[in-house]
Amino acid sequence: MTEAFTQAPTPAEIAARSEQVAPQLRRQLPPTPLVRFGAFSDELGAEVLVKCEHLQRTGSFKARGAMAKILTLTDEQRARGVVTASTGNHGLGVGNALAMLGGRGIVYLPENASPSKVAALRRLGLEIRAEGTDSGVLEPKARAYAAEHDLTYVSPYNDPDIVAGQGTIGLEILEQLAGERLDAVVVAVGGGGLVSGVAATLKKHLPGITVYGASPARDAAMAVSVEAGEITQIDGQETLSDGTAGSVEPGSITFELCRQLVDDWVLGGEQEISDALRMVIDTEHQLIEGSAAMAFAATRARKAELAGKRVAVVSCGGNISASTLVRALGPL
Amino acid sequence: MTEAFTQAPTPAEIAARSEQVAPQLRRQLPPTPLVRFGAFSDELGAEVLVKCEHLQRTGSFKARGAMAKILTLTDEQRARGVVTASTGNHGLGVGNALAMLGGRGIVYLPENASPSKVAALRRLGLEIRAEGTDSGVLEPKARAYAAEHDLTYVSPYNDPDIVAGQGTIGLEILEQLAGERLDAVVVAVGGGGLVSGVAATLKKHLPGITVYGASPARDAAMAVSVEAGEITQIDGQETLSDGTAGSVEPGSITFELCRQLVDDWVLGGEQEISDALRMVIDTEHQLIEGSAAMAFAATRARKAELAGKRVAVVSCGGNISASTLVRALGPL
Repeated sequence: MTEAFTQAPTPAEIAARSEQVAPQLRRQLPPTPLVRFGAFSDELGAEVLVKCEHLQRTGSFKARGAMAKILTLTDEQRARGVVTASTGNHGLGVGNALAMLGGRGIVYLPENASPSKVAALRRLGLEIRAEGTDSGVLEPKARAYAAEHDLTYVSPYNDPDIVAGQGTIGLEILEQLAGERLDAVVVAVGGGGLVSGVAATLKKHLPGITVYGASPARDAAMAVSVEAGEITQIDGQETLSDGTAGSVEPGSITFELCRQLVDDWVLGGEQEISDALRMVIDTEHQLIEGSAAMAFAATRARKAELAGKRVAVVSCGGNISASTLVRALGPL
Repeated sequence: MTEAFTQAPTPAEIAARSEQVAPQLRRQLPPTPLVRFGAFSDELGAEVLVKCEHLQRTGSFKARGAMAKILTLTDEQRARGVVTASTGNHGLGVGNALAMLGGRGIVYLPENASPSKVAALRRLGLEIRAEGTDSGVLEPKARAYAAEHDLTYVSPYNDPDIVAGQGTIGLEILEQLAGERLDAVVVAVGGGGLVSGVAATLKKHLPGITVYGASPARDAAMAVSVEAGEITQIDGQETLSDGTAGSVEPGSITFELCRQLVDDWVLGGEQEISDALRMVIDTEHQLIEGSAAMAFAATRARKAELAGKRVAVVSCGGNISASTLVRALGPL
């Protein structure tokens, strides 16, 4: 059912794959709301529609990509097992998909992963492999283990099925617009799976839409890579937008997709991310994580050009710890 | 349609009125989820089902009572106008009901109400009357204004229709249980409208259920009143559970209802409320307000007797400001 790509899939191929998986995926993960944020719309003088992936099962859009990928596996492949490396949202997404569809999962984590995250992954039924303290080496280790034991490795973004799964967000937005126009979409970018999927599906139907890619200035591997014209390793610093942190894997299919699909890159400072998080709590009383706040901060940064426009902000996740929240909101 | 009560309505009368209004109310306010909290269930050794009123429209259960009350008014009554006094969730509930059903609303506020709360009420179309800085005198002032101009006054809890509206939470829980048993329910108590409604509907169908009423030790007017055998004015102190703050109006119908329906009162300290708020953020990544955290704290306080039981916690609201959140979560 899944053809292999000898080179990066085109946006049209991603959009087609999204449309193919959408009906199956929807049976597992009901659509998230698209909600107008009134106070933020007033502030910007724009119509701001928020795609609430912070209300997605597992608390982040990553549930989609993982579900889309695991839906391509046979019963036998799921029973033999899938392997991934993630302390965060991708791990929860894989665990959730296996809990819903049935199957065995192994997740590689650093030994210093927070006990509450480990407990959440264990509660979904995943086997935990805690090794070392360097999360950077865990992905290759997980890939190697999967290859050695003939198990399925599930990448967080470098996989056409994962990207197509995230693309179902764009399809839902199109439906939820119910024919109204949309001028722009703002999406946080880490490995680029989310923005590639969302932009591919939206641009197919709304070719004139402007796609803003938002990353923290302290850790913007994809923006730096696109600027350089090739995948570039950077030394990312710690950021409140921890969901987008990390390097872009050499050869990742998302590099070409981002290059073609993202119209404008917005890099945000930590203060702007923190201000956006505070705004969403104060005006909508919703809990979002730093990477979602990054998208709101980027929308604010483009206030002048978005005035009078209809813009969708992908609020990509809500998984934030109390201690990170206090750090983000800072002293009174 | 609404009969007047010459004395406090009985639990059976409240339950009947809840059942009567439920179908109409549901067309305006879809049911909120009843969700098992896995980590908290593990912690308590109990099955904890959370009624997510923090996901209710307007961010709190108050939308129900206000909707139920305003559904009893004629078009002409709504057009002439309703009056209330509230800086908080009740005001949002009244504003929302009028925005959805049509009608004019006036809300009395203290002059020092926070600008973001005032903006939210104004966005719902309410007329704002800012007077003085003592919120205690605003309720009588609003009542007097309504009487003088033949408008409808909407009390936050001292009204059978308001209590019956909150009771629809109990009816939804019964449906969502789908026949499974429920041993206990934990509800935060301020004026007592929520616990009266929920307990009246649940006890009708589950007579053996234990109802826990939870209030902050610093401001527990109803618990003190029930203990004293009469409505008692207390000097409440500031609390993180600000949604339950305030005195019980003399003659309130909720006093008799609480006396008959609440089996056990749990008074919580500020540290316990804060710990519960942190737990919900860390394990479920959901934003709740202090009064909802109060219910989780009370559940924890009864851990020994709840072990092995199935307990519903009413998470009554999610309207918390970033600054209160930081204060609640405290320094790291």
